[in-house]
Amino acid sequence: MPKINRYIDINEVEREAKKDFIDRHSAFVHCESTATAGEMFAVTVKVGEAYTHPDDFDHYIASVALYNKDTKLAEATFFAGTLGGQGKKGNTTVTFNVVLEKDAELVAHAYCTKHGLWESDAVAVKVA
Amino acid sequence: MPKINRYIDINEVEREAKKDFIDRHSAFVHCESTATAGEMFAVTVKVGEAYTHPDDFDHYIASVALYNKDTKLAEATFFAGTLGGQGKKGNTTVTFNVVLEKDAELVAHAYCTKHGLWESDAVAVKVA
Amino acid sequence: MPKINRYIDINEVEREAKKDFIDRHSAFVHCESTATAGEMFAVTVKVGEAYTHPDDFDHYIASVALYNKDTKLAEATFFAGTLGGQGKKGNTTVTFNVVLEKDAELVAHAYCTKHGLWESDAVAVKVA
Amino acid sequence: MPKINRYIDINEVEREAKKDFIDRHSAFVHCESTATAGEMFAVTVKVGEAYTHPDDFDHYIASVALYNKDTKLAEATFFAGTLGGQGKKGNTTVTFNVVLEKDAELVAHAYCTKHGLWESDAVAVKVA
Repeated sequence: MPKINRYIDINEVEREAKKDFIDRHSAFVHCESTATAGEMFAVTVKVGEAYTHPDDFDHYIASVALYNKDTKLAEATFFAGTLGGQGKKGNTTVTFNVVLEKDAELVAHAYCTKHGLWESDAVAVKVA
Repeated sequence: MPKINRYIDINEVEREAKKDFIDRHSAFVHCESTATAGEMFAVTVKVGEAYTHPDDFDHYIASVALYNKDTKLAEATFFAGTLGGQGKKGNTTVTFNVVLEKDAELVAHAYCTKHGLWESDAVAVKVA
Repeated sequence: MPKINRYIDINEVEREAKKDFIDRHSAFVHCESTATAGEMFAVTVKVGEAYTHPDDFDHYIASVALYNKDTKLAEATFFAGTLGGQGKKGNTTVTFNVVLEKDAELVAHAYCTKHGLWESDAVAVKVA
Repeated sequence: MPKINRYIDINEVEREAKKDFIDRHSAFVHCESTATAGEMFAVTVKVGEAYTHPDDFDHYIASVALYNKDTKLAEATFFAGTLGGQGKKGNTTVTFNVVLEKDAELVAHAYCTKHGLWESDAVAVKVA
């Protein structure tokens, strides 16, 4: 506790409401699968893929943290209103730029003010 | 991943180095066991109890987050140097003041820049 | 821009609404005036002194940062609800513990989601 | 205090060391000059333009905050090592995605652990 919710492939989920719930809270790490050591490497974390999340005052994505295995690389915090505010929905998206020196496993945590912590699948990056 | 390290009672750990490693990274939640609904309630999070943690530039406690079950209440971030800096050691300590409306279970996460995330034992607070 | 609002002695402000507005947003640094080098030193930052601030979803104190002159020592972030939530009011209060090595000038910034950044008066601390 | 350093056009600065000092600390807001109300709008904040900043353990860019006038939209925090670590240099760069509803004036703050807060020039965005 707090519970770390983990992504489940929504194609294997039957109920539409559950697909939506899981997808809209899940962080997804988007980046190239290879990086050059010592060079800037863009990593986009997007919350939700097929569904959008509310941006209500009492229910919004407040932060997104990027980890390389156990090490935090960066974190972005947001306020209700970033995605249009009360009654609107969207996909929190942030692009961090990091320099990797060796093979990495990138993971993101998203925090929803109502439904807590959500962990992305890990994405392996080969660094040469 | 990232691994969430959890506190183990160090009295049950034999090796001195391991006792030190576990204790100095573990967050401990200190507060009264009962709170009055609607009134300010002090919650101290202290990292380490019997041992101290380095405050080196490349190895320090960078943040402490306080959760009530799955909900984040507050988070404090620090920089290397807060506890004296390079070569010094200490116990990162922060007191948050929160208003609880019903029974709570408080948990803290500490983040060490070298050894990742550490979760405290949960502390139950009766709210009347 | 963003505007850094600075505290004005409310005894010199005439209008009650303005006294309230200034006081409830202003950060105040509370600590001893002398510290011992290398020892833990408690610094409490409290937002508002004579008046309280709303803790509404769209209007709350979201963070408090503590500086020693130009250097950030620590920052605490909060969520709407920390002080009781919608319709309630209070004084955001956090106690950081820091180790000072030489004379310090402590200043705090508070951030209100509706009225921006507010800077406290500086508090001099003699370190011996 | 803390001092808010503001960008000075380095073409009007004579000393090379001073050009470097000002440029490498200054946040620059990069985005389109017009946005569509209710649609995601990418805003990149880059620290430094012509010069790079160290990423040393005791001297790095620790955070970048994005404001629309007095309102904080988002903030990203980093650790020493994000740009390659000790002995390396780079330009901290983060892309936030926000939804604007009316004309905005975007400003960024960068925080250097050695040289404090730096405010970017404001960038006006027409929203239609």
